[in-house]
Amino acid sequence: MARRIVIIGAHAAGCDAAAAARLTDREAEIILLTNERYAGYSRCGLPFVIGGHIKSFEDLIVFPPSYFRMNRLDLRLEANVTNIDVNSKAVEVQYRDGRTEKLQYDSLIIAAGARPAMPPIKGREKQGVYVLRTIDDGERINRAVENAKSAVVVGAGLIGLELGVAFVERGLKTTVVELLPQILPAMLDKDMADLVQKELEKNNLRIITGKSVDEILGDDKVTGVSVAGEQIQADIVVVATGVRGNVELAQKAGIELGETKLIKVNMRMETNVKDVYACGDCVESIHLITKRPVVCQLGTTAVRQARVAGINAAGGYAVFPGVLGATVTKLFDLEIGAVGLTETFAKRVGIETVSMTFSGKTRAAYYPGAMPIRVKLTADRDTERIVGAQIVGGEGVAQRINALSFAILNEMTVKDLARAETCYAPPLSETWDPMVLAAQALLRRMK
Amino acid sequence: MARRIVIIGAHAAGCDAAAAARLTDREAEIILLTNERYAGYSRCGLPFVIGGHIKSFEDLIVFPPSYFRMNRLDLRLEANVTNIDVNSKAVEVQYRDGRTEKLQYDSLIIAAGARPAMPPIKGREKQGVYVLRTIDDGERINRAVENAKSAVVVGAGLIGLELGVAFVERGLKTTVVELLPQILPAMLDKDMADLVQKELEKNNLRIITGKSVDEILGDDKVTGVSVAGEQIQADIVVVATGVRGNVELAQKAGIELGETKLIKVNMRMETNVKDVYACGDCVESIHLITKRPVVCQLGTTAVRQARVAGINAAGGYAVFPGVLGATVTKLFDLEIGAVGLTETFAKRVGIETVSMTFSGKTRAAYYPGAMPIRVKLTADRDTERIVGAQIVGGEGVAQRINALSFAILNEMTVKDLARAETCYAPPLSETWDPMVLAAQALLRRMK
Repeated sequence: MARRIVIIGAHAAGCDAAAAARLTDREAEIILLTNERYAGYSRCGLPFVIGGHIKSFEDLIVFPPSYFRMNRLDLRLEANVTNIDVNSKAVEVQYRDGRTEKLQYDSLIIAAGARPAMPPIKGREKQGVYVLRTIDDGERINRAVENAKSAVVVGAGLIGLELGVAFVERGLKTTVVELLPQILPAMLDKDMADLVQKELEKNNLRIITGKSVDEILGDDKVTGVSVAGEQIQADIVVVATGVRGNVELAQKAGIELGETKLIKVNMRMETNVKDVYACGDCVESIHLITKRPVVCQLGTTAVRQARVAGINAAGGYAVFPGVLGATVTKLFDLEIGAVGLTETFAKRVGIETVSMTFSGKTRAAYYPGAMPIRVKLTADRDTERIVGAQIVGGEGVAQRINALSFAILNEMTVKDLARAETCYAPPLSETWDPMVLAAQALLRRMK
Repeated sequence: MARRIVIIGAHAAGCDAAAAARLTDREAEIILLTNERYAGYSRCGLPFVIGGHIKSFEDLIVFPPSYFRMNRLDLRLEANVTNIDVNSKAVEVQYRDGRTEKLQYDSLIIAAGARPAMPPIKGREKQGVYVLRTIDDGERINRAVENAKSAVVVGAGLIGLELGVAFVERGLKTTVVELLPQILPAMLDKDMADLVQKELEKNNLRIITGKSVDEILGDDKVTGVSVAGEQIQADIVVVATGVRGNVELAQKAGIELGETKLIKVNMRMETNVKDVYACGDCVESIHLITKRPVVCQLGTTAVRQARVAGINAAGGYAVFPGVLGATVTKLFDLEIGAVGLTETFAKRVGIETVSMTFSGKTRAAYYPGAMPIRVKLTADRDTERIVGAQIVGGEGVAQRINALSFAILNEMTVKDLARAETCYAPPLSETWDPMVLAAQALLRRMK
């Protein structure tokens, strides 16, 4: 009889797990369950629809219904998993019409994702307060923007800033409020974050750091927020203070959580319960540099873990080695990327580092369109290996982060990078790429 | 007494050697000799001035006179080195005014570059036949373009094609003629080259491969060329069939050449003669994959070798490990890059390979401006290490080549790359970068 693989979740992790499982076992019965109305869309694209770069939310659907049909994947929308029973190897599902079913599995993949965290801000229940996670959330915000003149975003992480930029692009007077003393605190050190902040402010995005939103103002409907005594007008308030992994069902079923309070998995993405795998925003990852558990809720991590979970759940063999946390975004015309450890994070886990920042150009300096780019490299003082990189620039940031991701993955030292070969053509790059020049400058500092 | 370092050549290699020597020894007397009127300019930028992208040839000067002054580098223009005497450790120089000098050195760096090869085509002495190596060459061609309606370029290597594109951009009816059966034969396999050729032809650049120019036609002045019986009209003919290293002075001085007929150096860029270093287009390189001598006359190679030569010549210690031949160019709006071995080259040196080509998008498929990109990966069949990559696409090619350069340098296997971490944001990249998907596809083929 064919193996039955049940997947809880049908977005980045769920769909990639299903795809990998199908490639591994052409015969398996594969069922995907999601409580949403849409499956297989890119959550990361939501702010860019709101910003007007992408026409409609439906454009974000990267796995259309035909994909599921072609690959014989049994996708069930608005299907709510209410219980996991690992003893009888079944999940209990409630469908939209109220019907319930106990669904047996041979392998279970938990790709249950995460939900927006909602800090206990006074007034958060008011009309006009939003979070952004689903297409439904996006559509609600999009409708609200049409009649709004101003917005406040709480939280200056990736989603918060992408959304803040989108609001400015839509003509709203926008403020982003961040409790910590810098923007993008999980991604950049303060020196690089300040550089980004200045650029955002030049583009009319107001940013307040180091202060908290005391209260969301208004009667029923939001009229503004109060930040350290200042009242800021806002027709829309979006809370973007991170996400919480959906681990409750797993926990209730006896599946072990790790020290980060996300589901703990081994290198095969298997939980402590046999035949139960997990991947995506609901699991913790091992950091390739610190070798310690870390929260790494990125789309790239999700699909890579999902591929491994899918292969193993379908009887194959694959391992997920861990994460470096390679991240990138585009805010207005500025590209911002990072991989590995920031100085701040390294210090927190006891790694002594030495860093260097180098400012160069994205192309030959004389070539029209050459844009400034700043590369910060961080190395372990003892091993001299590169442990982190942060880049802010006008173009080519994502692929430079990929290059440095490969460098860190391969444990390249500063000296290795200082003499590494890069390619050159005046319209595209320099003979010495800024990454390499940053390494040469860091090398001189280390002497 | 201060060390005297004499450098023959004052462009990419010469200037970077001088810069590295100065950083190593603040006291050294450093003399640069060039027979040209200009020093320290980017030869690679010449076609882009002719194409109209860069305003003037003088914009290409990356080391202006002030740079030499600031770093106390004694630059001598139009200074012709007529002899190297390694026994008395001196070079004989003839200056523009006819004066000659025997210049003693403690360390000598030969960065004498190369000159265009001129195959014995009938009629090559006619007025209107050019080569492109120096600013003077560029200015001559630029003046000729003003009164020309048509052009033929002989040779479809990087310079030939960049120049062909420049001529089309300036409104000339242009044909590139290549003797070999494909364009970019040193850089791409035929399948990828054919893809590029189609794109160039779409942009009105005519390309003839597999045929030779039998004769350059015209009385005194060029009127066209004859290619396998066909007469092609041309007011300008540029011969771009590669370059020959300037090794004659060195050879005459008893400095050993390698099997490629370029100057042989050790890892410190030292020749067989003590205190005589060489770098740039006049030396041969060791290929990091084959471990064999190879001709690698790239700007990136030149500056890296020069840095090592400069440090060692100034009493420091550095080694140049070898080359991977990372190359990139932009032709019209298409970016083309390669690193490592092509299938064709690997076969020639006895390496059995397996290759895979993957077509994807440069950004999230739904994001406006996402452009096609094709990645070809080549791996050693035995070790499963990646030995070569070729990429053709709309954007982000140069930095992907850099990432794959780091991958090859670190001997990553196809499996390593198939699970390597890349970064993602819809406006900039995909969750699975095409490089990684190419590796996954190649992995399936290898099973």
